[in-house]
Amino acid sequence: MDIAIDVMGGDFAPLEAIKGVQLFLQSPQPDIHLTLIGKKALITPLLESYGLSENSQISVVNAEQVIEMHEHPTKALKEKTDSSISIGFYLLSAGKTDAFISAGNTGAMMVGAMFTIKPIDGVLRPTIGAYMPKQTGELALLADVGLNADCKPENLNQFAVLGSLFSKHILNKENPRVALVNLGEEEGKGNLLTQATYPLLKENPQIHFVGNAEGRDLLKDKADVYICDGFTGNVMLKFAESIYDIVTERKIQDAHFERFNFEIYGGVPVLGVNKPVIIGHGISHARAFDNMIRMAKKMFDEKLIERMRSSFAS
Amino acid sequence: MDIAIDVMGGDFAPLEAIKGVQLFLQSPQPDIHLTLIGKKALITPLLESYGLSENSQISVVNAEQVIEMHEHPTKALKEKTDSSISIGFYLLSAGKTDAFISAGNTGAMMVGAMFTIKPIDGVLRPTIGAYMPKQTGELALLADVGLNADCKPENLNQFAVLGSLFSKHILNKENPRVALVNLGEEEGKGNLLTQATYPLLKENPQIHFVGNAEGRDLLKDKADVYICDGFTGNVMLKFAESIYDIVTERKIQDAHFERFNFEIYGGVPVLGVNKPVIIGHGISHARAFDNMIRMAKKMFDEKLIERMRSSFAS
Repeated sequence: MDIAIDVMGGDFAPLEAIKGVQLFLQSPQPDIHLTLIGKKALITPLLESYGLSENSQISVVNAEQVIEMHEHPTKALKEKTDSSISIGFYLLSAGKTDAFISAGNTGAMMVGAMFTIKPIDGVLRPTIGAYMPKQTGELALLADVGLNADCKPENLNQFAVLGSLFSKHILNKENPRVALVNLGEEEGKGNLLTQATYPLLKENPQIHFVGNAEGRDLLKDKADVYICDGFTGNVMLKFAESIYDIVTERKIQDAHFERFNFEIYGGVPVLGVNKPVIIGHGISHARAFDNMIRMAKKMFDEKLIERMRSSFAS
Repeated sequence: MDIAIDVMGGDFAPLEAIKGVQLFLQSPQPDIHLTLIGKKALITPLLESYGLSENSQISVVNAEQVIEMHEHPTKALKEKTDSSISIGFYLLSAGKTDAFISAGNTGAMMVGAMFTIKPIDGVLRPTIGAYMPKQTGELALLADVGLNADCKPENLNQFAVLGSLFSKHILNKENPRVALVNLGEEEGKGNLLTQATYPLLKENPQIHFVGNAEGRDLLKDKADVYICDGFTGNVMLKFAESIYDIVTERKIQDAHFERFNFEIYGGVPVLGVNKPVIIGHGISHARAFDNMIRMAKKMFDEKLIERMRSSFAS
């Protein structure tokens, strides 16, 4: 398979992306080809300084432009056709690569995924998830975390299916438990959205629904997939990120809170679009890029997109 | 002033309520009379064992029934007319006490506040807030945290006024900063609710609006009052509570995380009703009861309800 990487995306581009590639290739990856997108004049010497070069496993595609973090996504994608993100989506939609990874402008990545790659037939709204570190040492998936600020019950019901497939095939959870983020445990509790969503989840034969989860359950082992609207999920995720900031500032050393360093996970895919698209955290370092490349590989190996298509074909 | 306390409410009733009364009276409180509501046969000997008794400062009102934690609020209030919560609201609405405190059934306290005490004229929906411990050592107020699962922009705008008055007069913040909990910092970001709320807050002359706050800002010093719908606030609060659980379980000793022990704060008032009603955490101990009594006193001394009435009279 071919995996395209936006080497210019992220706060530490292109250095950390290149280091991530080096890290990934430290273990033999016989069937993987990596396409690095960015300013060739920058990338080539950097590759060399890390003992890499263009070869049968690595090629560089030149992109003279970069979509900066603050730019308006739609406008930038339209105007900067020679940017690393635009070229990445071109390669992906043209079938010249099998997956696309960037830690660059999140909005541009979302817009590209939605409008260039497009949702899987039957998926009303794709979603973006994030990991929640459980006290058990495992990771739960929380979705949506910001792609869909306002949701309808049917959206949440679909996130549950997409999240379950991700949990099963990428996080290796057999029969993943799905919970609805809510303000009370009992059926019937909630705002209008969750009250209307609960019966849909309960009757959905494609998921293993275990009921409502309160805020206090998110870091516990109540479920493997937590479903909520993108507003709630975004506020929760950023709150959780700030806990790690506080722990770090206060020099607290603790193995569990170390797992609140969301940067180490690399990124999560846009779930429900027709190709693997992985959006990394802006502050991604080498390990994050390595993890994202591994995730793209696993999504491909596990045929995740095909499985999602089958789920929504019926 | 007279403060009525439901001595039967909370997981450690009546013991911890009595201990809280003892704690409160350890400093001279010349102008305060406390009305303790509950099973007199239980309370009298307990008072004695803590060196207290019915006197000019303490009286006991017998209540033979208790609304248990799991009971349906409206049904329980209707049927258990001889319960400590029902009698508390009766005393408050009849003007026989000036404030009512309970760590009992939260739903019954909300229903009582809403339907017996009633909202201040002009207040569409009262709200319940919670404290968020800032890294500065101060407390911010987060409202709503669950009384209003679905909100309209005008509700949030009113919570901002109520929260500002609370912050100013109870938490002593001069010109408290108000922020809108949102999924991005820039104006225009958000879900339909926050997008429509932002301009109302911006144009509200009764508050000092400082813009949007993301999840990561809640524990920082971005604002003194954070406004959100009760669904988001409830999920956030319970998530924050679980952080303290994890810190405790992992035996992490840290002064800042100690402040995530929400129990110590005692409780927060229902903001926007005609009398001081304070709802405590179920697991309230003596210190929490002491804090709640002090808060009721301060609300009275600072004429918080009258100030709220003036704000909404125009």
